[in-house]
Amino acid sequence: MDIKAMVLEKAKNAKKSARKLAGTSTAAKNEALTAMADGLIKARDELKKENEKDIAYAKEKGLSSALIDRLLLNDKRIDGMAGGLKEIVALPDPVGEVTHMWHRPSGIRVGKIRVPLGVIGIIYESRPNVTADAVGLSIKSGNAIILRGGSEAINSNKAIANILIKSAMEAGLPEGCIQLIDITDRQAIQDMIKLDQYIDMIVARGGHELIKAVSEGATIPIAKHSAGVCHTFVDTGADLKVAEDICFNAKVQRPGVCNSMETMLVHKDVAEAFLPDMIKRFLDAGVEIRGCQQTKSIVPNILDATEEDWYTEYLDLILSVRVVKDIDEAIDHIETYGSHHSDAIVTKDYERANRFLNEVDSAAVYANASTRFTDGSEFGLGAELGISTQKLHSRGPMGLEDLTSQKFIIFGSGQIRQ
Amino acid sequence: MDIKAMVLEKAKNAKKSARKLAGTSTAAKNEALTAMADGLIKARDELKKENEKDIAYAKEKGLSSALIDRLLLNDKRIDGMAGGLKEIVALPDPVGEVTHMWHRPSGIRVGKIRVPLGVIGIIYESRPNVTADAVGLSIKSGNAIILRGGSEAINSNKAIANILIKSAMEAGLPEGCIQLIDITDRQAIQDMIKLDQYIDMIVARGGHELIKAVSEGATIPIAKHSAGVCHTFVDTGADLKVAEDICFNAKVQRPGVCNSMETMLVHKDVAEAFLPDMIKRFLDAGVEIRGCQQTKSIVPNILDATEEDWYTEYLDLILSVRVVKDIDEAIDHIETYGSHHSDAIVTKDYERANRFLNEVDSAAVYANASTRFTDGSEFGLGAELGISTQKLHSRGPMGLEDLTSQKFIIFGSGQIRQ
Repeated sequence: MDIKAMVLEKAKNAKKSARKLAGTSTAAKNEALTAMADGLIKARDELKKENEKDIAYAKEKGLSSALIDRLLLNDKRIDGMAGGLKEIVALPDPVGEVTHMWHRPSGIRVGKIRVPLGVIGIIYESRPNVTADAVGLSIKSGNAIILRGGSEAINSNKAIANILIKSAMEAGLPEGCIQLIDITDRQAIQDMIKLDQYIDMIVARGGHELIKAVSEGATIPIAKHSAGVCHTFVDTGADLKVAEDICFNAKVQRPGVCNSMETMLVHKDVAEAFLPDMIKRFLDAGVEIRGCQQTKSIVPNILDATEEDWYTEYLDLILSVRVVKDIDEAIDHIETYGSHHSDAIVTKDYERANRFLNEVDSAAVYANASTRFTDGSEFGLGAELGISTQKLHSRGPMGLEDLTSQKFIIFGSGQIRQ
Repeated sequence: MDIKAMVLEKAKNAKKSARKLAGTSTAAKNEALTAMADGLIKARDELKKENEKDIAYAKEKGLSSALIDRLLLNDKRIDGMAGGLKEIVALPDPVGEVTHMWHRPSGIRVGKIRVPLGVIGIIYESRPNVTADAVGLSIKSGNAIILRGGSEAINSNKAIANILIKSAMEAGLPEGCIQLIDITDRQAIQDMIKLDQYIDMIVARGGHELIKAVSEGATIPIAKHSAGVCHTFVDTGADLKVAEDICFNAKVQRPGVCNSMETMLVHKDVAEAFLPDMIKRFLDAGVEIRGCQQTKSIVPNILDATEEDWYTEYLDLILSVRVVKDIDEAIDHIETYGSHHSDAIVTKDYERANRFLNEVDSAAVYANASTRFTDGSEFGLGAELGISTQKLHSRGPMGLEDLTSQKFIIFGSGQIRQ
């Protein structure tokens, strides 16, 4: 099989459909999305059967339980995928929205109007529900999509994509608007990311290696959904019960996802009061703790944190803990070791809350809440195509608006430039 | 000289200053911009003297008069640069603007706030006034900037940048926030576009070769300011006097810039009434006309347009002319040969005006006005850092808002995710 020719063919087909899809009405797009949701529910058993193959292979390879959890499709998650599509139906169509319009002294009227990007390529790892979310968001925002999931979920992704394509075609969407690259050879990625004539944006969701390979080879603009090395800083004077609940939730509620906490920073003045109970609760929940020397002096019998730990996204029940002398040291730590994803302060102090929100340069910065909220649905954007850890084109959870561009429209009555 | 080490050093210095600049008050930034404007005016003679070197070299190299015009700094243009900086002073500071804020059922309050990108690198050709515009817009939007202008304007750029840096430092801006890469070796570009650890966005303004080299080598997100192959379509039933004035202005008023018209499309039903007078007016103004066969059958004694002409950005007094059978053929031509920059329809028909505005996929789409208006000042955005011909991060003239990103800020009171 000629991989390059196959990828090119799919990209051309996507591009051809994009102009038609851009002119498709909101009603027709919603009808197709509803058909896709129903299609997934009807194919429940088939999806679980295909998913079992991926799970069996993951176990054979000895993947961690957190990573296997990311792969799993059960009834609840299939309902979740379908529900996600229906949630997208309910969201307003961003295409055609005139976000501003104004007059100029020259007499022209200038407006900005949202238009689809055209063709979106998504390169992702693990979670198969991304397939449905990505298709739903792309179609609603008038974009054709090319899917390239990871080998670990290939059977699940194929099954989901085929149901979505079938439902979309039956509902009358333009042929070719959903493309699946179903070979797992990495060469397909390298070919795909150079097709700037046909693809307008690449969304890259995955580990450091994937992001690096895509960034270095691409001639297409990339939205990177990279690692989440997220922090919570427990400030002096914080309500320690609130801090404990927030930190526990951020680490334990779903450790395998990018918005879970990887490093807890604790102000030195509350470390002795806070750390013993907090760490006991973590240990009881099966969390491995890696602490700095000051942490160990308060709670012995935990592991040493190394320099590398501060940079690490565990995606597992492991937490690094560091005692810092003040908010400056906390912010410096986050800016040095973090991945600019989601970081929180737990504090009662008005000024320090504001300083943290202003000075921490991350996609989502929190005062007094769990970093686990960084999510399209939780933020009210609907499902998300990824969480951007870069500063452009979008930052944080990428919803429908982030899949559009704005063009200028100008209404004149014969004006010429002087 | 070790080019790589020199570029790295400048990028590191810019990055170091960026965090300080992000926290600099609007008043302090405005004071510095005013000092820069005054500095340019005071150094008027020095600037003209340095510019003369570039002009002399351009003439020696035999550049076209339109290209030499792009390079020229005269009193009017120096006043224009200073005026541009003062215009930026008067614009609202985008940093810190909370563009939306809302509550979620979970109890958290989620907001989006504009923040600087960090460090902007700009790689540009020709016009030296870009140096002042780029610095002004970057500083006002809280971004450090690294300038890399073209060899053809190196003396002018150096002179301008040095005055700006001196004025900025005297006004108390953080050291290192304006960096000039003053060697013209192209290796400097290749080194610069891989420093993704230090530079957040590269703005590339120039010809096809430059854009291609930057796109292929960069690991940093790029805003491309590429060619402007702009069209005007004269529809059937158009007011031919209005059409003539718009087309003449779009081609002749300043042919060396990207928003000037390169191809005129004329509906077959008005071609005979429109073309003879229009082409005579162009020829009288020294415009060379390259026409399709139908154009030539109406106005003989003009050159033949080749397939390549339709793709060409002349940046000179040359125009290609094509007769089309209807609006569909006009839109197809623009989508096939255009560069998605600025395209106009001249029409009296309501429906076709709307169709053109909706279906032409360009950064700026006009009904009944000259494409020459595509410009930050004319659109009311203030000076522009470039005109993006891509769909993300921004499209069209890039003003202050386009030099920011939005991060999420979340106000909680102890919320955890269920």
